[in-house]
Amino acid sequence: MRPLITLITDFGLREYFVGAMKGAILSVNPDTDIVDVTHDVRSHDIPEAAFTLRCAYSFFPPRTIHVVVVDPGVGSARRALIVSAAGHYFVGPDNGVFSLIYQSETVERVISITAEHYFRRPVSDTFHGRDIFGPVAAWIGSGIEIGKFGEAISDYVKLTIPKLVRDAAGVVRGVVLHIDRFGNLITSISAAELAGIGKARKFSVAGKEIHRIVRSYSDGLPAEPFALVGSAGFFEIAAQQSSAATLLQAQQGNEVLVYLE
Amino acid sequence: MRPLITLITDFGLREYFVGAMKGAILSVNPDTDIVDVTHDVRSHDIPEAAFTLRCAYSFFPPRTIHVVVVDPGVGSARRALIVSAAGHYFVGPDNGVFSLIYQSETVERVISITAEHYFRRPVSDTFHGRDIFGPVAAWIGSGIEIGKFGEAISDYVKLTIPKLVRDAAGVVRGVVLHIDRFGNLITSISAAELAGIGKARKFSVAGKEIHRIVRSYSDGLPAEPFALVGSAGFFEIAAQQSSAATLLQAQQGNEVLVYLE
Amino acid sequence: MRPLITLITDFGLREYFVGAMKGAILSVNPDTDIVDVTHDVRSHDIPEAAFTLRCAYSFFPPRTIHVVVVDPGVGSARRALIVSAAGHYFVGPDNGVFSLIYQSETVERVISITAEHYFRRPVSDTFHGRDIFGPVAAWIGSGIEIGKFGEAISDYVKLTIPKLVRDAAGVVRGVVLHIDRFGNLITSISAAELAGIGKARKFSVAGKEIHRIVRSYSDGLPAEPFALVGSAGFFEIAAQQSSAATLLQAQQGNEVLVYLE
Repeated sequence: MRPLITLITDFGLREYFVGAMKGAILSVNPDTDIVDVTHDVRSHDIPEAAFTLRCAYSFFPPRTIHVVVVDPGVGSARRALIVSAAGHYFVGPDNGVFSLIYQSETVERVISITAEHYFRRPVSDTFHGRDIFGPVAAWIGSGIEIGKFGEAISDYVKLTIPKLVRDAAGVVRGVVLHIDRFGNLITSISAAELAGIGKARKFSVAGKEIHRIVRSYSDGLPAEPFALVGSAGFFEIAAQQSSAATLLQAQQGNEVLVYLE
Repeated sequence: MRPLITLITDFGLREYFVGAMKGAILSVNPDTDIVDVTHDVRSHDIPEAAFTLRCAYSFFPPRTIHVVVVDPGVGSARRALIVSAAGHYFVGPDNGVFSLIYQSETVERVISITAEHYFRRPVSDTFHGRDIFGPVAAWIGSGIEIGKFGEAISDYVKLTIPKLVRDAAGVVRGVVLHIDRFGNLITSISAAELAGIGKARKFSVAGKEIHRIVRSYSDGLPAEPFALVGSAGFFEIAAQQSSAATLLQAQQGNEVLVYLE
Repeated sequence: MRPLITLITDFGLREYFVGAMKGAILSVNPDTDIVDVTHDVRSHDIPEAAFTLRCAYSFFPPRTIHVVVVDPGVGSARRALIVSAAGHYFVGPDNGVFSLIYQSETVERVISITAEHYFRRPVSDTFHGRDIFGPVAAWIGSGIEIGKFGEAISDYVKLTIPKLVRDAAGVVRGVVLHIDRFGNLITSISAAELAGIGKARKFSVAGKEIHRIVRSYSDGLPAEPFALVGSAGFFEIAAQQSSAATLLQAQQGNEVLVYLE
């Protein structure tokens, strides 16, 4: 079986960056399958990269190697990591991009990458995706044990992710994490986490209330926004064949209120 | 030989959707080659998906599995299909995306997918690309006979595609299906179909006449729009190294008139 | 080992073009790995395609076949080429897209492709990526010796690339080749070439001076643009976590001055 590497970056698709990184991977091991998750993370947006990884990784086969390069600190002293968790590997900078993996999975090991003989030479100060993360991922795929790349550490960078809390009025608060291309508002409200607190009665976002809670997009009514659990397990606000973002004049970062029964 | 799956969706490239769907395919059979045709079909635009499939599928090797997920009815009672035609397989929702295959090829079998043990579990109500269409395509690639997925049906959904007709004045009417990134106007006028009716003398679109009919883009004159048969077999209106759409102030949906000799 | 083909085009990702070209490649040899470098070269921008190829090709393994289709002259008498250089193959139109390969590498052979039995049939007048360049690349990957495709030539088209020159005032002139998605200004000033002339003291672009020259993006100060050597070996003007293009109101094509010590 060929090793499988996935890529999440903020490189965009117009430049030569993604191509060069794939070339560096294939130069280590030409027998690698590479899958793009996305290269359109907003520039330097570490939380968005963490969310994308969280939504995607578990659908890949065991032993997949997920490389995340959203790396505003490239060339600084920030560390480079290999994370082993949930039967997968994760490779990228120590800047919080793996926070949602740390939160949702049992972490087996986190290695701080120092073994420079696995890097592409010379190592640039501006493009570690090509010179470090890509080649290291390819070597893992070739069977190098991750302990060979450096020492295990435990003080890796974690973004603070607030837990859902029910206030005195029976309200849980979250935010619009992301607006997708259909205009759906993806919220930070995990359906599994909310289930441990209570049952949603209605939502409110951008000053408008959403009373309809359904199972699938096709259960909605045209021009009436509704809430449902999206495919990544988070509540989202959607509208049938139209944009909820436009209907509600909502934006990324807006507060989302859930009124519980 | 590794099985080959192509993808046409309206998921866009920014979200985790395409990655998760590929992960679901590779979790069934990691030894699959996956080719993106496009993920930028306009949201919910079934005719555009049908046209893209019609232009692309025949260039792939026999036994390729083409997955089309433009699926505004996801989670509703709309059926899920496998179509066998022209030595290829087609997998997607029963909403008309395969209409141009039904029109141009001899259809061998259309299966309504019901065998849930081939689905990814749990099946979400919002993302059948990941949970149904991708895994089913991967199982077909692994050699499962398509009759195993459900019963053959004949009442599948077909979009109405008008035939070209010559009117009393010797004029044939079509529309601008699509404007490509070069500004070329792709029309609904099939060159093969028109050849059975007559020979084009001039075109008219957006109130402007096009008198020049050429073989290749380089035969045109700068700033003078011309007509030619595009690479998918449809007439298009183009301009040399500039945008015909801008020159003619034309838009998708504009009527196109062909004046016959 | 599976043959490896990379693609650089101006086809965009919305149309069926890239998919059809990959299908044509895989119809010749389904056992081919295909890597997209980019399909978002500006329409018909031959210098941008040449620059992208120059930045990407050397990171791929030996014997990789790089296909470049930015081809405003498709259907005209312009020749189709195979270039053998630096242990790689390059396939595309004879319009200058390989100029930076000719400049930086020892060219072993340039073949003018004429052996039509390697083309896809029928050959359209508008889409040689699918009908000629893709299939020829796939046949090279299948082991056909490049001399079988046509005669060696030496009068291939080369774009003029000015050498860096130090003027009487100790100034070297270049241009902004490209603005990347982070707002970095990629200049035409090769660090290796400049090293043979002198050492940079400050830069000037769009009437503003840049005094800070650093090694990595993280060495910069916020809101103060700085110069550094980018990952492709060219000087670029950047700003820490913000857009140098916006800060300097700079555009592609602006003159860049380097003041030497």
